[in-house]
Amino acid sequence: LMPASTLNPEDAEGVDKARNLRERVLIIGFGRFAQVVSQPLLARDVDVSIIDMDVEMIQAAGNFGFKVYYGDGTRLDVLRASGAEKAETILVCVDKQADADKIVELVKAEFPLTKLFVRAYDRGHAIRLVQAGVEYQLRETFESALVFGYQVLIDLGFTHQQAEETIEDVRRRDEERLSIQMVEGITGGRSLMRGNIRTTRPEPYIKPHREGQALNEEAADALEEEEEREKTGA
Amino acid sequence: LMPASTLNPEDAEGVDKARNLRERVLIIGFGRFAQVVSQPLLARDVDVSIIDMDVEMIQAAGNFGFKVYYGDGTRLDVLRASGAEKAETILVCVDKQADADKIVELVKAEFPLTKLFVRAYDRGHAIRLVQAGVEYQLRETFESALVFGYQVLIDLGFTHQQAEETIEDVRRRDEERLSIQMVEGITGGRSLMRGNIRTTRPEPYIKPHREGQALNEEAADALEEEEEREKTGA
Repeated sequence: LMPASTLNPEDAEGVDKARNLRERVLIIGFGRFAQVVSQPLLARDVDVSIIDMDVEMIQAAGNFGFKVYYGDGTRLDVLRASGAEKAETILVCVDKQADADKIVELVKAEFPLTKLFVRAYDRGHAIRLVQAGVEYQLRETFESALVFGYQVLIDLGFTHQQAEETIEDVRRRDEERLSIQMVEGITGGRSLMRGNIRTTRPEPYIKPHREGQALNEEAADALEEEEEREKTGA
Repeated sequence: LMPASTLNPEDAEGVDKARNLRERVLIIGFGRFAQVVSQPLLARDVDVSIIDMDVEMIQAAGNFGFKVYYGDGTRLDVLRASGAEKAETILVCVDKQADADKIVELVKAEFPLTKLFVRAYDRGHAIRLVQAGVEYQLRETFESALVFGYQVLIDLGFTHQQAEETIEDVRRRDEERLSIQMVEGITGGRSLMRGNIRTTRPEPYIKPHREGQALNEEAADALEEEEEREKTGA
């Protein structure tokens, strides 16, 4: 298969540019994330327009029951042609942070009445999106990681109630940390994260036997930068 | 910051190679996903070893309350040094599918008593992992996308009960589609996915007003391939 960038959308069969779209919800970007997000909306008969820039995906999706229009959501003319002004909500589900940020910037400036729900990459991105004034953002792997952790706890022998309480505790700490980070910057609230180095420091909520502490701001900052890029794991 | 590959782990301060590790749970890869997964475990005082190949991340994490050892989990000697044989469970949380597959292959062959919980990239990867016999796998963006879709429904005016029922329906269909795919291959069960092209075809579970159908195998296959690579969204 050729890279999408080498295909001319004008020449590709079954590929139409976004034009005069006017549905209630506009989805920008139709990868792994949006393909799942679309399902509850379509189950409830919500009118949905979808745009993406990947010509081959658009062609394949067309044969899969999806009409996906060709369009670059980081362009104002494309947003306009995709019904961004009339839409109640735009779901920004692109996988590149910079593209999501650009779309958010354009929509906030040009179509301020349209709500923005945005797929975030990581904490740093989530904070930027909140500060940009989006109605909703969610880190793309966060909820999956919580479910995964829940399943590990169950497998290790914890009860469902124990696992549920623990996940809720982790979620509360995460939210609190994000709130602090909004004010203090990315290094704020580090002590809310639990490390695997034993300490005796007490913590709010549950009191585990071991606690991690962020020891200095530079280190925490560096960790966040790494988290943002998420280089190859081992 | 320098790319991790240019740093020699031998020379890097605070970076230790994995050696004689023997905790109950071994986490391989400590990016966005594992950082969250670790939290419920540490909250419950589960003994956790962590390995990763990113020297800078290891250093930053060290100042953040985490001891992360240096090691390439796709190597048998490293797995052995990391306690893969004695561990009850290995959490494979690397972000590259091929690395995850390699680790799974090694552990199944060399340490068959150790359980494997694996971060999956997409449906194709999830199917490979199930077929490889892992105890648990979860697509890294799947649960987040469901939560995101739930929040969109609530924002559009559906009740919490309606939204919950819809998410459960989507989850059931997804599981059913995966089950069919295990048998028929990646193109199986396509009609369980709802498209945004209006049709009148009835469906099981909820009956929405519109339904998508996958029209041919090649197209569905192509869509899956695209989904697997998830090229840049619009």
